[in-house]
Amino acid sequence: MWRDLLPIGRNPESSGYRRYAWTGADADCRTWFREQAETRGLTYEVDRNGNQWAWLGDPAAGDAVVTGSHLDSVPDGGAFDGPLGVVSSFAALDELRTRGAQPHRPLAVVNFGDEEGARFGLACVGSRLTAGQLTVEAAHALRDADGITLPQAMERAGYDPEAIGPDPERLARIGAFVELHVEQGRALAALSDSGSAAGPHAVGVASAIWPHGRWRFDFHGEANHAGTTRIEDRRDPMLTYANTVLAARKKARLAGALATFGKVSVEPNGVNAIASLVRGWLDSRAADEETLAEVVAAVEQAAVERGERDGVDVRVTRESFTPVVEFAHGLRDELAKMLGGAPVLPTGAGHDAGILSGTVPTAMLFVRNPTGVSHSPAESATEDDCTAGVTALADVLEGLACR
Amino acid sequence: MWRDLLPIGRNPESSGYRRYAWTGADADCRTWFREQAETRGLTYEVDRNGNQWAWLGDPAAGDAVVTGSHLDSVPDGGAFDGPLGVVSSFAALDELRTRGAQPHRPLAVVNFGDEEGARFGLACVGSRLTAGQLTVEAAHALRDADGITLPQAMERAGYDPEAIGPDPERLARIGAFVELHVEQGRALAALSDSGSAAGPHAVGVASAIWPHGRWRFDFHGEANHAGTTRIEDRRDPMLTYANTVLAARKKARLAGALATFGKVSVEPNGVNAIASLVRGWLDSRAADEETLAEVVAAVEQAAVERGERDGVDVRVTRESFTPVVEFAHGLRDELAKMLGGAPVLPTGAGHDAGILSGTVPTAMLFVRNPTGVSHSPAESATEDDCTAGVTALADVLEGLACR
Repeated sequence: MWRDLLPIGRNPESSGYRRYAWTGADADCRTWFREQAETRGLTYEVDRNGNQWAWLGDPAAGDAVVTGSHLDSVPDGGAFDGPLGVVSSFAALDELRTRGAQPHRPLAVVNFGDEEGARFGLACVGSRLTAGQLTVEAAHALRDADGITLPQAMERAGYDPEAIGPDPERLARIGAFVELHVEQGRALAALSDSGSAAGPHAVGVASAIWPHGRWRFDFHGEANHAGTTRIEDRRDPMLTYANTVLAARKKARLAGALATFGKVSVEPNGVNAIASLVRGWLDSRAADEETLAEVVAAVEQAAVERGERDGVDVRVTRESFTPVVEFAHGLRDELAKMLGGAPVLPTGAGHDAGILSGTVPTAMLFVRNPTGVSHSPAESATEDDCTAGVTALADVLEGLACR
Repeated sequence: MWRDLLPIGRNPESSGYRRYAWTGADADCRTWFREQAETRGLTYEVDRNGNQWAWLGDPAAGDAVVTGSHLDSVPDGGAFDGPLGVVSSFAALDELRTRGAQPHRPLAVVNFGDEEGARFGLACVGSRLTAGQLTVEAAHALRDADGITLPQAMERAGYDPEAIGPDPERLARIGAFVELHVEQGRALAALSDSGSAAGPHAVGVASAIWPHGRWRFDFHGEANHAGTTRIEDRRDPMLTYANTVLAARKKARLAGALATFGKVSVEPNGVNAIASLVRGWLDSRAADEETLAEVVAAVEQAAVERGERDGVDVRVTRESFTPVVEFAHGLRDELAKMLGGAPVLPTGAGHDAGILSGTVPTAMLFVRNPTGVSHSPAESATEDDCTAGVTALADVLEGLACR
């Protein structure tokens, strides 16, 4: 099953994946999903927003236990982010059959469309539309880098963009949603460093998704000749930017938070020209919104203070903000107990599970990532840990639907 | 005369100039030059490399005193860088006539082609070819951003690219070359801060062009998710880059040198991605080659040391290096004396005068730049200072050719 999916959308140069929403690679992944459903005799459905469902039992019966994730990828992403959750869901259904477990609640596997937002710049479009967290108008206005709109892309892929919108009836059928995902950090691996290789910490349960946001820092200086302008006559915004990058790391470390400058643009960006404008984007996340606000305020203050020394004007714009997501405490504790006291840990990354958690009791399982690498071809998980993930997901589905 | 030149190649959005070699704006500047020559009854010539000459007296007589500069510009450059030298040269000839001075040596005004290298990426192409410092093969291989080669561009502008090459006979006619240029820093302005507005420091004499070079710093880290990777698991090259930017400023200040990072490129350059690779270009210049080497070595050492802390691999590549240019000491001292003890000062910028100085006794005059701004529409010089520049150049031409 895993082997069939591996070659789809793989970039031979980087060995990373380029499975963007509504492209050929995405269609191939969707065909694979449909085949998995049909092979198992599951009821296959595509909802109005293009999310794929495979049902064991009557979809209309209600109080269903749903599991799944996504099949699309970031540019040159790894093989596990998304697909591990979908593959493990089908494998967990197989495991239940092997165990002879009899579900008394409907079970379903879901593939949410366009989770990564790599093509249209907005993450979790499939689940957002379904949960009514993205308006049809806003979705219709999305455009990719080539100017193709989301409706055009959906039409070319054979889907009806006029049908998209909130789907409360479908969500009302769901009694619990559990998403399994490769961990995107080393928290489980760090817990296991002194333990056994595939021990009790191969799988963890999510507590919450940290609040996070993006802030654009504009550093306005003065263009000048790098070879002739005296140091005391310069207003070089690269210095202010550099100092702010280091300040962000320091403030985040002190607060137990994360703060990263990973994107920068420079004008005029010439080797012999002092920059007139440096733009840097801050991605910051913390366990709670108060800490996050404090970290960002401290970074901004450091930028402004250094800017005064450098003769550089600093302006900060919040480009996006996502509040904290607390997963359902009851479900979370039930899962941790079912898994023999699996560690409960937060994550900084957004997920479809985070979108659904506002409407449906939702939980997440994380599979240990030995290097912690994510959104990169180097992302990995051992075969033993993936198997442990399938077993854990089967335990959870059995515990929720078969007892 | 100045007024006719002002509108040519002006970008109305930035008020900066875009006069690139062998373009329409360049052709308009050349027509202006020819008209200035013909209006004054000067002998007009274009040499094999497309440089324009306007002769007063017999070009073949030898031991000529030549003055001039260039008319092309950097992208969105100022009005003065280049044109001030050409305009002042014609104005100085007018001034000599007004004074009734009788030259006993030939005098010429020159416009060197493609000084800024804005289109083909190599500066001083016209003077380099003439002085044999650029081979015909290398010149023929130059391409602009649209893939147009230098020969194609010359042909389209009505020049013969097969004719280009060294021109030792032409250089042998020249007994002294003096280039007047707006200062590209605030050294004269700083000297004048406590003096009178258009006082003795409106004009300075160049001592040398600092040795300078470009070094590319590659900071190799590890791509990862900005929202989930623990601080202790990161190998973030943006931190190493930022620390190196600040170290470069510090090392340069301590050594009385210049060191600038004005260009940077980042991979993958995503807001929520820790960078895998940051490339920064260091432009550094100093009064002597030993100091320059020390500054660059100190910056590299700081980068490597910080890289070890960050888990980032640092590689440094020298992309270009230009040794020090010492202008002819005799001519320099003679000029400073003629100008009543004008300040003698170095510059960090390259010039056609620097290219010619290896073959011909060469000097430069700088006109005060009140803000020091260069390669920007905000570049300026007062009318009084420009007039003082013309007077100084006339004094120098009279002193060299008429006594």
